[in-house]
Amino acid sequence: MSAALNSPKWELKKICDLNEDLCRHRVVAPVVVVASRPTRRVKVFWGVLTGVMIVLYILFNGHVAKAQDKWMTYPGDFEVWMGNKMQNRRTERGTFFPPFWRLDNHYVLVDFRKEVECLSDDDVEVLTEGKYNCKVDGQLVSGAPRWLHLAKGKHVLELKVYNQDSPPALRVRSRSCAADSGWMVTFEDKEWIDASGKASDKSGTVWLPVEVLRFGVPPSQWRLAISPRQAVHVERGSRSLIVDFGKESFGYVRLHGVKGRGKLSLYYGESKEEALSVDSCEVLDRLEAVGDTVLTGSRAFRYVNIQWEEGMQVDSASMLFEYLPVAQRGSFRCSDEEINKIYDVAAYTLHLNTREFFIDGIKRDRWIWSGDAYQSYLMNYYLFFDEASVTRTLWALRGKDPVTSHINTIMDYSFYWYLGIYDYYQYTGDTSFIRLCYPRMVSLMNFIEGRRNKNRWLVGLPGDWLFIDWADGLSKKGEVSFEQLLYVRSLETMALCAGLAGDGVAGQRYGEEAAVLKRKLFADFWDENRMAFRHSSLGGVTRYSNMFGIFFGYFDARQQDAVKRGVLLNDSIQKITTPYMRFYELEALCATGDQGHVLKEMKDYWGGMLSLGATSFWEKYDPTEKGVQHYAMYGRPFGRSLCHAWGASPIYLLGKYYLGVKPLEPGYQRYAVRPVLGGLEWMEGDVPTPHGNVRVYCSRNTIRVSAASGKGVLQFKSKTRPVCKEGVVREVGKNSYEVDLEGGKVYTVKYVDTE
Amino acid sequence: MSAALNSPKWELKKICDLNEDLCRHRVVAPVVVVASRPTRRVKVFWGVLTGVMIVLYILFNGHVAKAQDKWMTYPGDFEVWMGNKMQNRRTERGTFFPPFWRLDNHYVLVDFRKEVECLSDDDVEVLTEGKYNCKVDGQLVSGAPRWLHLAKGKHVLELKVYNQDSPPALRVRSRSCAADSGWMVTFEDKEWIDASGKASDKSGTVWLPVEVLRFGVPPSQWRLAISPRQAVHVERGSRSLIVDFGKESFGYVRLHGVKGRGKLSLYYGESKEEALSVDSCEVLDRLEAVGDTVLTGSRAFRYVNIQWEEGMQVDSASMLFEYLPVAQRGSFRCSDEEINKIYDVAAYTLHLNTREFFIDGIKRDRWIWSGDAYQSYLMNYYLFFDEASVTRTLWALRGKDPVTSHINTIMDYSFYWYLGIYDYYQYTGDTSFIRLCYPRMVSLMNFIEGRRNKNRWLVGLPGDWLFIDWADGLSKKGEVSFEQLLYVRSLETMALCAGLAGDGVAGQRYGEEAAVLKRKLFADFWDENRMAFRHSSLGGVTRYSNMFGIFFGYFDARQQDAVKRGVLLNDSIQKITTPYMRFYELEALCATGDQGHVLKEMKDYWGGMLSLGATSFWEKYDPTEKGVQHYAMYGRPFGRSLCHAWGASPIYLLGKYYLGVKPLEPGYQRYAVRPVLGGLEWMEGDVPTPHGNVRVYCSRNTIRVSAASGKGVLQFKSKTRPVCKEGVVREVGKNSYEVDLEGGKVYTVKYVDTE
Repeated sequence: MSAALNSPKWELKKICDLNEDLCRHRVVAPVVVVASRPTRRVKVFWGVLTGVMIVLYILFNGHVAKAQDKWMTYPGDFEVWMGNKMQNRRTERGTFFPPFWRLDNHYVLVDFRKEVECLSDDDVEVLTEGKYNCKVDGQLVSGAPRWLHLAKGKHVLELKVYNQDSPPALRVRSRSCAADSGWMVTFEDKEWIDASGKASDKSGTVWLPVEVLRFGVPPSQWRLAISPRQAVHVERGSRSLIVDFGKESFGYVRLHGVKGRGKLSLYYGESKEEALSVDSCEVLDRLEAVGDTVLTGSRAFRYVNIQWEEGMQVDSASMLFEYLPVAQRGSFRCSDEEINKIYDVAAYTLHLNTREFFIDGIKRDRWIWSGDAYQSYLMNYYLFFDEASVTRTLWALRGKDPVTSHINTIMDYSFYWYLGIYDYYQYTGDTSFIRLCYPRMVSLMNFIEGRRNKNRWLVGLPGDWLFIDWADGLSKKGEVSFEQLLYVRSLETMALCAGLAGDGVAGQRYGEEAAVLKRKLFADFWDENRMAFRHSSLGGVTRYSNMFGIFFGYFDARQQDAVKRGVLLNDSIQKITTPYMRFYELEALCATGDQGHVLKEMKDYWGGMLSLGATSFWEKYDPTEKGVQHYAMYGRPFGRSLCHAWGASPIYLLGKYYLGVKPLEPGYQRYAVRPVLGGLEWMEGDVPTPHGNVRVYCSRNTIRVSAASGKGVLQFKSKTRPVCKEGVVREVGKNSYEVDLEGGKVYTVKYVDTE
Repeated sequence: MSAALNSPKWELKKICDLNEDLCRHRVVAPVVVVASRPTRRVKVFWGVLTGVMIVLYILFNGHVAKAQDKWMTYPGDFEVWMGNKMQNRRTERGTFFPPFWRLDNHYVLVDFRKEVECLSDDDVEVLTEGKYNCKVDGQLVSGAPRWLHLAKGKHVLELKVYNQDSPPALRVRSRSCAADSGWMVTFEDKEWIDASGKASDKSGTVWLPVEVLRFGVPPSQWRLAISPRQAVHVERGSRSLIVDFGKESFGYVRLHGVKGRGKLSLYYGESKEEALSVDSCEVLDRLEAVGDTVLTGSRAFRYVNIQWEEGMQVDSASMLFEYLPVAQRGSFRCSDEEINKIYDVAAYTLHLNTREFFIDGIKRDRWIWSGDAYQSYLMNYYLFFDEASVTRTLWALRGKDPVTSHINTIMDYSFYWYLGIYDYYQYTGDTSFIRLCYPRMVSLMNFIEGRRNKNRWLVGLPGDWLFIDWADGLSKKGEVSFEQLLYVRSLETMALCAGLAGDGVAGQRYGEEAAVLKRKLFADFWDENRMAFRHSSLGGVTRYSNMFGIFFGYFDARQQDAVKRGVLLNDSIQKITTPYMRFYELEALCATGDQGHVLKEMKDYWGGMLSLGATSFWEKYDPTEKGVQHYAMYGRPFGRSLCHAWGASPIYLLGKYYLGVKPLEPGYQRYAVRPVLGGLEWMEGDVPTPHGNVRVYCSRNTIRVSAASGKGVLQFKSKTRPVCKEGVVREVGKNSYEVDLEGGKVYTVKYVDTE
């Protein structure tokens, strides 16, 4: 094995890896709670012992308080590698089904370097994943030492790590020398970039669960968390079990009490009908029983139909639910119980699809699609605010140079990647990720600019897929305004990020190009008679560029109003049928202040799924369909995904357009709270920010807002002059008021809702 | 383990791989010859059984006679991956010592595709290295089938293979469908390239030893061959053994009869002095004894100094010699026994350095250096004619896009890479490799062209290393004529290869650029007063560009003669001290017809090493040094390599300029034989070509030439009118004659040598 680890236990781990499932058993084994009835004396003894352990732990950790206690890899490499593992796990009825775009690979040889100043003599612990050597002050240290002794004073540490099988990784612990920043890294291209600090937190390290880091598991050994779940209902046949886990789930099925040797078949179903359809279910396993317990690979299901051969016996089935341990920071409650239920199921749907990366759906592709992921980023800002999941996904989508095709081969998906970075900066204010990622932003943009036509617009060239949406007869010919609109926004992103990355000259060029093309967008596609963007240079009007124009803020008030009436609310314009584009349509309506209309739509569409028993939200829902029609898609009876990330959009809409919280300056340095009830009696909830939550309560006559820190502004309408004891109420227009918000205070406003 | 192999034995192999050494034992174990004294009856029985087995084997192989019986990978990927493994095996006194340039990685997901016509029903066997799926005629086949049944008729086979750990590989066997060509491959960039036929033979498949292919070992499991060697002399101490293997060797040391537990130290020496110098020897191993037998990693040595701790015991040591099983097709014998010995030791030196790739030296770097490899290619054409070793090395050197630095970070080394391709085509005529490699030739040339200055010349920019040669005070400043000369030759290579790759437009552009810059080379650097190329735009004269100008054929007769006298034979011009540049200096002298002078130089320089007991040729030899001074270099007492590829140049010189055989048209479609004795009484030898050997005998009055096939021309000088019964003697100048040669005939010429 080429990747030698400097601790023998990793070799064991590697062997163990041969059977990943076996490994999981080993991981699970220690999680055993000993239940007994202890005496009082025993309780005291354990209490004291625990106290002593805690004190010792704190003392010991004090010793390495400033330690670099995380694994570093070359930024983006862990994500590329893990993306390969994840996206090649897809099966279709048991057959391997890989992506159809280029997959990249990690750099096998990486140099880490740091200039340190030791305030006293220090021992530095070196852990790597890969073969390595060390230089201290330019001198090669003999062998592959686990400990380096550094005398008081300034030193330069250099470590070269080689690993063919997984990204070379380094973890350095010491009292004073290996603090949390200052590590630089290169893949021998002689460009040193930051490997530590906030930036690299997002490049594959800090998102590892804390307990995994504590035991020092290196990056390649990282796994999602698991916890056992029991079935809620079982139907037993002579050679079968039909098991219902009560709701949509993702994980490993465990069969217990397996006797006899022979073949087992497991047919998985998001619906019971699918599990019963041995000929058409999308996911299945055929296994050979080799012992008392059988563990499957990771699958998505609510129901499992387990069948076995004559002469065998299976006692029962349970599962190991697999999940990313991420805290739900956002919340929403209101006077409408159906909306509350929608919020909860949407949150569960997003959580199931928030894994190693943001994926499209848990049953089928389980791939990282840029268009799907873009919506997950936005929802995530209102539910988990997990920055690392966003950057992991952005790295994995982008891959490496040279760029030979659009992301996922889709033109719009390249642009969504830029939009994702734009929003990431707005919500998190994290410039270090932008700086690391900027060179790959440039090379993708070079690829895009190299494909422009003589009008400086982008049309589909061989190898390009213009997706836009699944819609009958949607033309992708000529210059499509939707693609150009996304292109302009991408250039604006480049202008912004070039500035942040210190590339001012390029920033100015991108900014000018964006401005020129934004004017050209209106010159080429705005139809002053129809008061809307044309679909393309070939004419026609569709909703896509018009609704994006609204929440990009590209229209003036007159244009926006006309687009809302003439396009969004005009039934003669081809309707949106996918929840994917419904996300943006509802957002555009909210952005124009039509929360009342959107609330009804939510109750109809998502409420409709709930009334059919949905425990997670679907890839597509058509209220006119009946029974098993709901499960069909792509010409297959169970082709539809019943747990699809883009089905969770109410999280985003309720947080951003009802509670009304959004950043005004990058990273919520300033933020707005603009609550809109949209017909609800009252609502309350939390919106996470980098500085803690913003908490909002709003009824028809009271608004209450608090935030841990930062500066915000509360914006609302009131029929009467509002009253706020904690702040100054400013009138900013007819019935429009503002209150400036300071962190750490609770503001209560008495007002009268204008709805 | 992400790379699932579709045969359980590979999993075992993987576990076994954890201890590569253990594995080697397993490989060696079956190679046991049972020695006994069989009766006559037993002999007959075995004879008959063997006969039956041979008949059965032939019959069975007839069944799969047209079978695709080799592994395919994405062209260049196996080489990149193997290059990583090989170049990261270097240690310096036990400490890992990796290269300092970017190492690339393989594509993890690869598509293979073939349109086939089955003349009857057929069963196709599929073997992969990696997880895979199959489509037949666009339909996904369930599972990962080992056998595919195809009905008579036309079919399209598609296989997607994913492998994170090593290059995805495919081997398909069938009677009629999977013949030796027609497989296309893509890494999902939608560019399909040829994966089979002659081209891919060189991309990582056919160079595998036949016996390995026969047993179906997949590419990632490939190893060099090994054979046991015994020590020729042993000095035994109470806790040490000093073992002499009689000559320079490469392989694994085996300790036998190890008793007791404790530490073992092995100090390796190319000289006895080095092995005895525990503090300064370049290579050492410190091992823990864990059993009766101990096996080290692969090392270069003649002597091993083995020491162990108190309380332990070691009976003896042997070694497993490790080598590339490649046939020596070239030969040379002459009237001078010293030259014969030089040829043999040079051949052994080159063989030791011809491994997974052409490496620089076996003790130290063991890396693939483009400048060193370039000389090995040339020697190889006169010794092994192993095309696969050349293309393996070219692929590994080039790596992948994007180009971020010169090859090995050295500007001249990028140019040698082009020169290597130029020569490869001249000697082999293999266009399929050129076609596969052409896109990477273009991207490297784009990188080079992007670094030109306003004069269109290349000067060192940050990150560039201008090596040229190890020579005191050699200036790398300004426009260095040597680099520009190599650049012009590289452009000529591009023009040639663009044409072969069907890129005529680019071919014309490169051709014109080469012509313009060749004229500019003379305009900018040729000094008509000194009748030589200036070293650089800053002035001065050195040998480098002047000697290359000779064998590139850039000079007219007047210029060449002046350069020979005014530079090559002018002691006031800084002398060449490295065998690396001596290679070219001696070649330039030979090209001007000075074989007599070169013969003396050979006897002095290489004969000098032999007289000091060399069993392989050195990195450097200075006859004025004494004793252990010969072993020092780079400021270290044993830094010098005593087995360095570039030390083997007599092979090339004797084959090309004494036997005088070289191609006149690509792939020896036409060739010249121009024997020059250079002071020898007689000489004879073989020069390998793609069509068999050219055999030459030459004395002062007889020349005898034969070749298996092809058309050649014998060119020689004679004081008298020569006589040849087998062909027509043509007079082409004063004392100059030619005889046209046909394959399959032996030509004997009676003449009188003019020397």
